[in-house]
Amino acid sequence: MIDTLKNHILKFVSPPKSELQEFLNKMQLKRYNNKEYLLKEQQYCTHQYFISKGCFRFYFINQKGIEKIINFGIEDWWISNFDSFINKSPSEYNIQAVEDAVVFKINKQDLSAILANSLELNQYFRMIHERVRIADQKRIQYMYSLSGEELYTTFREYNPHFVQRVPQYMLASYLGFTPEFLSKIRANKKV
Amino acid sequence: MIDTLKNHILKFVSPPKSELQEFLNKMQLKRYNNKEYLLKEQQYCTHQYFISKGCFRFYFINQKGIEKIINFGIEDWWISNFDSFINKSPSEYNIQAVEDAVVFKINKQDLSAILANSLELNQYFRMIHERVRIADQKRIQYMYSLSGEELYTTFREYNPHFVQRVPQYMLASYLGFTPEFLSKIRANKKV
Repeated sequence: MIDTLKNHILKFVSPPKSELQEFLNKMQLKRYNNKEYLLKEQQYCTHQYFISKGCFRFYFINQKGIEKIINFGIEDWWISNFDSFINKSPSEYNIQAVEDAVVFKINKQDLSAILANSLELNQYFRMIHERVRIADQKRIQYMYSLSGEELYTTFREYNPHFVQRVPQYMLASYLGFTPEFLSKIRANKKV
Repeated sequence: MIDTLKNHILKFVSPPKSELQEFLNKMQLKRYNNKEYLLKEQQYCTHQYFISKGCFRFYFINQKGIEKIINFGIEDWWISNFDSFINKSPSEYNIQAVEDAVVFKINKQDLSAILANSLELNQYFRMIHERVRIADQKRIQYMYSLSGEELYTTFREYNPHFVQRVPQYMLASYLGFTPEFLSKIRANKKV
């Protein structure tokens, strides 16, 4: 299964074989059952996680006690709480499996040692971040410009398979509206 | 003025002197007057920009014709439209000076050549991205969890000097509410 990560890296960069192998050797496989937590509020995020299979949600609970999903992570995504990981602060977010999942994780010490020396793996993570920044920018833009119905249509257009994978109430939370409102949109669109 | 960039890089990494100098030599100084555009909608973003002095706003115009500010950039920030820069697509966003400004810019070819070889500069940009991702994540969290008044108070707490620098209607746009609503909050708080 480590080939999912190896192939993902090779899509972006071509590190020396020994360097790539050293990195892959540091990655530990971990399985999560549906609904199991990878990280809980107030815990410290000590690893970076590459999702080899499955889906996670990254969410927080707002002051009214309502779950708000900031992001989902699926195959070929890296997931972690950077703020907690870098600044060694307790997490404000929860990361929970929403399907049975397989991840590869690496701890801070091992990752730092690799990134202290590997040109290509720094390029790899730099490129990943650039792509996530584009996605985050679009997310903020959509939150500011689209109606509820447009948000759903746009999300569905860009993520056709994903819409089938997660419970509707989670999709509603991610898009910023109530499950009832999402049902209404779907009924209108007959989708 | 290039020392602002040099010092910023040295805060994060210690590249070989010649490598750092090669990078700095590629950076071109450009001045912008207040209200001048660094990038306009439909233009292609061909450079990355380091802000040495001044302030820019990164915004788009929504379907109702209303300006929506996604971000501001001030001293020591890199600014660009990554989507346009990486994917060679016409920009959906405008980047405009909101004060007289001085930037250093580098084009794609020069930046690619440097990042093909420099371990430390890849580390530098990777670290910058990590920090921006933390900020973007918090931004999305706040948009989902705070009331208008809390948004303003939180923004002011984290950016006390910045609140004085930009016109109030821009701050309102960034925080997602009307200028009238911001005036009301400020009147209530007597700030």
